[in-house]
Amino acid sequence: MRRSSNLGDMDAPLVREATPDDVAAIVTMVRELAEFEKLAHECEISEATLSRSLFGESPAVFAHVAVAHDGTVAGMAIWFLTYSTFQGRHGIYLEDLIVRPELRGQGFGTALLRRLAAVAAERGYGRFEWVALDWNEPAIRFYETLGAQRMPEWLRFRLSGDALEAIASSN
Amino acid sequence: MRRSSNLGDMDAPLVREATPDDVAAIVTMVRELAEFEKLAHECEISEATLSRSLFGESPAVFAHVAVAHDGTVAGMAIWFLTYSTFQGRHGIYLEDLIVRPELRGQGFGTALLRRLAAVAAERGYGRFEWVALDWNEPAIRFYETLGAQRMPEWLRFRLSGDALEAIASSN
Repeated sequence: MRRSSNLGDMDAPLVREATPDDVAAIVTMVRELAEFEKLAHECEISEATLSRSLFGESPAVFAHVAVAHDGTVAGMAIWFLTYSTFQGRHGIYLEDLIVRPELRGQGFGTALLRRLAAVAAERGYGRFEWVALDWNEPAIRFYETLGAQRMPEWLRFRLSGDALEAIASSN
Repeated sequence: MRRSSNLGDMDAPLVREATPDDVAAIVTMVRELAEFEKLAHECEISEATLSRSLFGESPAVFAHVAVAHDGTVAGMAIWFLTYSTFQGRHGIYLEDLIVRPELRGQGFGTALLRRLAAVAAERGYGRFEWVALDWNEPAIRFYETLGAQRMPEWLRFRLSGDALEAIASSN
């Protein structure tokens, strides 16, 4: 019998590696996240490109999904490998962690994070990292309850679009 | 004839993919950077582990070096592939950019960044990203003169060490 009174009581949701059959559900969730983050104008993903990225030759990006009781995809994690030169070891970077809005609070997000932490530990990786928007308080609270450390001293820089082209062509 | 009056006048320094012969120089530079960043206690890299990471089977981390006139390695960039779910495209993350202290200001760092920007552009990648410590003003000024955009709204989180183990084993 499944109890849902609190997280500690719940059976852990099923988490598995994504398959090509999950791509449509993943793209739907990415688009929903883009809306939430007010970044829908930057969301160009399609099922064809995501399929190629995840299931083409020598993929460099990976996905896990959390599955609800009725078999539908409740959440997903997209991740890739980092490398720490100081450690001389790879790590995991979680690019996106998304749980369908109507299924939040049931442990799917925690189960996905736990699985990726287990992948990192099994492989001897040194770090498991991600970023959150600084106004996304529920996400930040959730990450801190897991024991994740904020790294506020690291300032992120990005070259993209015209600025990237300009520097590339000055080479 | 090589002029050194300013960056714009200089011949672009030679940048090439690292080879196994560069590993010793790279490890020396990583250790120097760790001292500068006051993180020497976190620096565990060895020539053997770096060689395996860069030149083993199916590497997931890459290195370029900038070479001085006399053939010595003046600087290096260690990088890996990211993935933007929104874009459905890979990008480049620059893990470390290091120029030997006595060779700074001669364009080696710029040449390395330009080369990686060119790799990104050639492959159709969407982003070229990195982080800087928020107190490293010379680095921040350098990145901004290149047109890189600060992303202060993204807060970085990390699970490592005991916290990573704890979550992994709760899986």
